[in-house]
Amino acid sequence: MLSGSQLGAKTEIDRALENFLADTRVNLGAIDPHLAPVSAALTEFLSGGKRLRPLFAVAGYVGAGGAIHAGALEPIYKAVTSLELLQACALIHDDMMDGSDTRRGAPSMHRRFESEHRDRSGLGDSENFGGAAALLLGDLALVLSSQALNSSGITSEQWSAVNPIFDTMKVELMAGQYLDMHAGSRANVSIDDALKIAIYKSGKYTIERPLHFGGALALCAPELLTIYSDYGIPLGVAFQLRDDLLGVFGDSTLTGKPAGDDLLEGKQTALISYALSHMESNDVREFGEMFGNRNASAAHIERMRELINTSGAVQFIEKIIDEKTTLALQASADSRITPSGQELLAELALAATRRSA
Amino acid sequence: MLSGSQLGAKTEIDRALENFLADTRVNLGAIDPHLAPVSAALTEFLSGGKRLRPLFAVAGYVGAGGAIHAGALEPIYKAVTSLELLQACALIHDDMMDGSDTRRGAPSMHRRFESEHRDRSGLGDSENFGGAAALLLGDLALVLSSQALNSSGITSEQWSAVNPIFDTMKVELMAGQYLDMHAGSRANVSIDDALKIAIYKSGKYTIERPLHFGGALALCAPELLTIYSDYGIPLGVAFQLRDDLLGVFGDSTLTGKPAGDDLLEGKQTALISYALSHMESNDVREFGEMFGNRNASAAHIERMRELINTSGAVQFIEKIIDEKTTLALQASADSRITPSGQELLAELALAATRRSA
Repeated sequence: MLSGSQLGAKTEIDRALENFLADTRVNLGAIDPHLAPVSAALTEFLSGGKRLRPLFAVAGYVGAGGAIHAGALEPIYKAVTSLELLQACALIHDDMMDGSDTRRGAPSMHRRFESEHRDRSGLGDSENFGGAAALLLGDLALVLSSQALNSSGITSEQWSAVNPIFDTMKVELMAGQYLDMHAGSRANVSIDDALKIAIYKSGKYTIERPLHFGGALALCAPELLTIYSDYGIPLGVAFQLRDDLLGVFGDSTLTGKPAGDDLLEGKQTALISYALSHMESNDVREFGEMFGNRNASAAHIERMRELINTSGAVQFIEKIIDEKTTLALQASADSRITPSGQELLAELALAATRRSA
Repeated sequence: MLSGSQLGAKTEIDRALENFLADTRVNLGAIDPHLAPVSAALTEFLSGGKRLRPLFAVAGYVGAGGAIHAGALEPIYKAVTSLELLQACALIHDDMMDGSDTRRGAPSMHRRFESEHRDRSGLGDSENFGGAAALLLGDLALVLSSQALNSSGITSEQWSAVNPIFDTMKVELMAGQYLDMHAGSRANVSIDDALKIAIYKSGKYTIERPLHFGGALALCAPELLTIYSDYGIPLGVAFQLRDDLLGVFGDSTLTGKPAGDDLLEGKQTALISYALSHMESNDVREFGEMFGNRNASAAHIERMRELINTSGAVQFIEKIIDEKTTLALQASADSRITPSGQELLAELALAATRRSA
């Protein structure tokens, strides 16, 4: 779904990230050779990914009229890699919390280090080792995220503008993760609660704050941050709702996750919340018996999908996605955003909501 | 063990931390009332602690001749709280990795949230919930650590000086934690490996880098950083070796940890490494059968202590502690350190190595 200008930016972000990770491998290697598997795991983990948050940040920068000659852009590309490293922390720790075995079709980090421990017949419990290693790998990614921003070469004026936003973004992310996990432990999660979590986990974290991050790097006027919020919050909700649909109906060869992953996990999304409150009571009972069972059969997954479909939840969620995306596209057409910024934002809105992975 | 000047600094650090956490509670509360237990847990967790790293940072600042009128010190006290928040992340995650039930005599964070989940009959597994909550709480502490530094009100010149040090320190901490954990999975850990881990986990993280952090806040000359290293590295090793002794022989009413905690955990410290390589082979066998057994009886713990004592390991470790402390004290007497800085460093050297908790 990426257009030419986005692809160019993605290539530059990939390059900046590779360079930063190459330096990191040298630094870790100088501490101890036993850290080589840590470097390798981090590098491989970060070789995948859509770079969505850095791309939104670049769009925020371009939309705010930031200088786009190569010399000005180089520190920007370095700075926005911090968002990808933050996302690596979130995903590595998320997979631990969810007990997910895979990520993008490869073993999740705790499983990877569990295998590494088992293969060398390490002392102690392999699962514990894998969990501890993934915990520290996520922490390291979070620490490197700060380092990537701090060493990007942005000016102290840019730094002063971007920094409070980045700090707020990270607090909101951890808060959103907690609220999401906490919702999973409650019997009744209202659709309002589910949408609020979507706003914190995705609206703010994936879209609004990265745009603010980029806008701040361009030293933009405060009013532009408001316009970015008008675009980012609804689009983030649409993004999360698309994720919810993919978590139930997605093609596992494209998502890199097991089919019906959210059903196996018992994830209380807005989709599920709507479906449950619009099912017949015996359907609710039948659904409840299968939902959240990690060993559910393919037939059970198919039956849960059918029950969700019959409830009207899919049409409802698709309708919200459409409405929210329309709101975002309207906001992106604001004349205070540069023309090339408007174009990027419109393209990214579609990339975020009409995806299959 | 703290003298008047240190006590004064500790009071100021406590106050700065309390103020920061009060702001954090407001910020989290504004996101969602479900975050109240997170705020409460973080506040309680941070109400304890010796503030050793912030105190070393203040000593580094004073020793480098940083301005000590109240207006200059206020942002310094705020900035050094970042080290205490970083330490909170390390401890919360460490307790998860070690499966520790207690910290400073209170339930560890994963146990606390496990109980909270059980008490309200939350959906799903209470232990999983506790682990996930503690994981996110540690991440939040790490994120707040950056925010505390960034919002401290230090000048951009101070920030540019301190920031690369803080980033390096955090990478070294995570690397040291990994190496420590990795050593626990290997059959043979040499005393050199154990000392190297002590250098990264304590020498650098607890003492050298906090001193550099403080020196950078005073915009000190590079040569002072070298002197601080000459003090910090040996003292850090002595600090860690004292920790190793307390982990085996410490009074649990003072340490807040179970008696013989490191023995139950099977922690491969320099003390254990020396002891094992100086025991008779049948003693090694007997020790090996009890070491790392979480359910070891009091009699077993006593017997392991006896075997360690008989090996000569305690005298050996005490001797290294003495030698390293002497080296640190010599370094602290360097005339390029201000007189009040010299005094603080000498006091802190004893507080770090002659403690019982």
